Amino acid sequence: MTIQTPNEDVRRAATERLGALATPPGALGRLGELAVWMTACQGEVPPRPVENVRLVIFAGDHGVAQHGVSAFPPAITGAMVRTFLSGRAGVSALAKAHGVQVRVLDLGVDEEFEDLDAATREALTRHKIRRASGAIHLEDALTAEETARALAAGAAVAREEIAAGAQLLISGDMGIGNTTPAAAMVAAGLGLPASEVTGRGTGIGEDAMRTKTDVITTALARAGERADDPIETLAALGSADLAATTGYLLEAARNGVPVLLDGLMSVACALTADRIEPGAAKWYAAGHRSTEPAQSLALEKLGLEPLLDLDLRLGEGSGAVAAVPVVRSAVALLRDVALLSELAPGEPA
Amino acid sequence: MTIQTPNEDVRRAATERLGALATPPGALGRLGELAVWMTACQGEVPPRPVENVRLVIFAGDHGVAQHGVSAFPPAITGAMVRTFLSGRAGVSALAKAHGVQVRVLDLGVDEEFEDLDAATREALTRHKIRRASGAIHLEDALTAEETARALAAGAAVAREEIAAGAQLLISGDMGIGNTTPAAAMVAAGLGLPASEVTGRGTGIGEDAMRTKTDVITTALARAGERADDPIETLAALGSADLAATTGYLLEAARNGVPVLLDGLMSVACALTADRIEPGAAKWYAAGHRSTEPAQSLALEKLGLEPLLDLDLRLGEGSGAVAAVPVVRSAVALLRDVALLSELAPGEPA
Repeated sequence: MTIQTPNEDVRRAATERLGALATPPGALGRLGELAVWMTACQGEVPPRPVENVRLVIFAGDHGVAQHGVSAFPPAITGAMVRTFLSGRAGVSALAKAHGVQVRVLDLGVDEEFEDLDAATREALTRHKIRRASGAIHLEDALTAEETARALAAGAAVAREEIAAGAQLLISGDMGIGNTTPAAAMVAAGLGLPASEVTGRGTGIGEDAMRTKTDVITTALARAGERADDPIETLAALGSADLAATTGYLLEAARNGVPVLLDGLMSVACALTADRIEPGAAKWYAAGHRSTEPAQSLALEKLGLEPLLDLDLRLGEGSGAVAAVPVVRSAVALLRDVALLSELAPGEPA
Repeated sequence: MTIQTPNEDVRRAATERLGALATPPGALGRLGELAVWMTACQGEVPPRPVENVRLVIFAGDHGVAQHGVSAFPPAITGAMVRTFLSGRAGVSALAKAHGVQVRVLDLGVDEEFEDLDAATREALTRHKIRRASGAIHLEDALTAEETARALAAGAAVAREEIAAGAQLLISGDMGIGNTTPAAAMVAAGLGLPASEVTGRGTGIGEDAMRTKTDVITTALARAGERADDPIETLAALGSADLAATTGYLLEAARNGVPVLLDGLMSVACALTADRIEPGAAKWYAAGHRSTEPAQSLALEKLGLEPLLDLDLRLGEGSGAVAAVPVVRSAVALLRDVALLSELAPGEPA
């Protein structure tokens, strides 16, 4: 399946409708542009209200987390997965406030979740690729077979969410250490050195920053020319959860379902998806600006400007979920505001 | 009634709760700070969900609109009031999307609304001060008596909205030419020349910009030292709708009800309210950054940083209504996210 662009005829009709609203020209600012994009994605003017919004959190551990790149121990990944399941995490609170459906999947968490009841465990681990992905400065994150399986798993999940009526998809992340492979993926995609992409993640100090930068430098050197290929990038520098996220974002674009991107993990995978199939990013909007430098660099490359900038660095898909009401604002304006011609039917438009 | 500060003990307790959440320190960014402020305003930890949000749009005409400062003719003010009543304006669409109650009041529109049914007309014009405020470069906007009456009207309206259960108040504006008196009020409050506060309003060209700057310069010179007094500022440089908005914002602060500010008109009135009773602004948060320079200048003086920056210049309270979900996100996080001690009850917090 090749990737189409959002409907150009509808985009033109939506732009015309925007200009015909009973508001001063340009007064809706970025909400006007966002509304036109959502309408073109939907393929119909006026746009439909965005009610069915679905977040999938892809969880996984990372070998690098054993090597001093994070402020937290790897065991936190599984603990947070349980917090998502109990609906008490940060993104759970936001999703409840804004009517977003949440699903969490274990792609590569380094434990078996044997304490969970069978049905919950089965749903959680159905797409599991392995326990923890490789420490990318020492070894590949995934084998070629695992990479293909993770991409296919993400695509299958996207199809399931679309079948459930998703009008807008979001990817979330959970995995101690995950900003290290994600930053490496951005470095690979943009041809940048580790020093430009490395950020503080959940809040590491100077020593850990040096370690993290070194880990990414070594990983990029180890990957060598394989970083020029996006699928090889996922195998060498990514992880099971990031490869699945990439497959999920790619499948959304292939099916013409718009995506609201979150922070670094989401955007690193969007960049990789767009490397795999150029044009995928036309189906993506940026929910928020994260504090990670690699996220801003990748967004710039994709030509995306975030809707929110609130210094969030929670991960989990939280920034995108917080931005869902902005998308709803945009659609409401283009859909519900009177046309000038309706207010003054006797006068020329 | 003097103005209190939001509850300091509750602010401390909310800050403690924020630090005790099962999220990395600082990961909630500005949503964390916003949540602490809302909780201190509510006076209770954890905060209550912000369900009852109420917008009052203060409409009025301005003598300066007859003098080339706007891209639109004054008759648009009354037409837009009718559009609010029919629920088809920009802010109507946003308010419907985000569950915000809207009320529109004619404080100084230059017509009688005789086509409206008696009950609608009575509700709309109950607090009317006069038809159009004076052209501020030629004469005072209001007499002293009108100014006092408008301030009292705004305060009465705030009390009505609070009695109806408002947990968060918003002021909106409608009135062709209104950025001219609002910018003059900011110039008076900050001691700045017209050149620094004048913006393009709904989108005027170079000629109208020069005219508008001249009008504000002349108005400031005419007001002279009276601009040092905030009530005299309203009389000399303001308008009926802006004086009422000031009274509304002041009364919200006096009653300890938080306000989400909108664009230039809302912020110019907030600045004036804080001049009348220093400390009023502790009850205000900034919803969005408008494209008007005077709004940013006044926000900086009040120590407020907007939640949204989407190049909106629609007025009507639209930027604040679009930001309401951000406030709800903040409160949901501080209220609903698990405490670390709940997830690991055996371990020290």
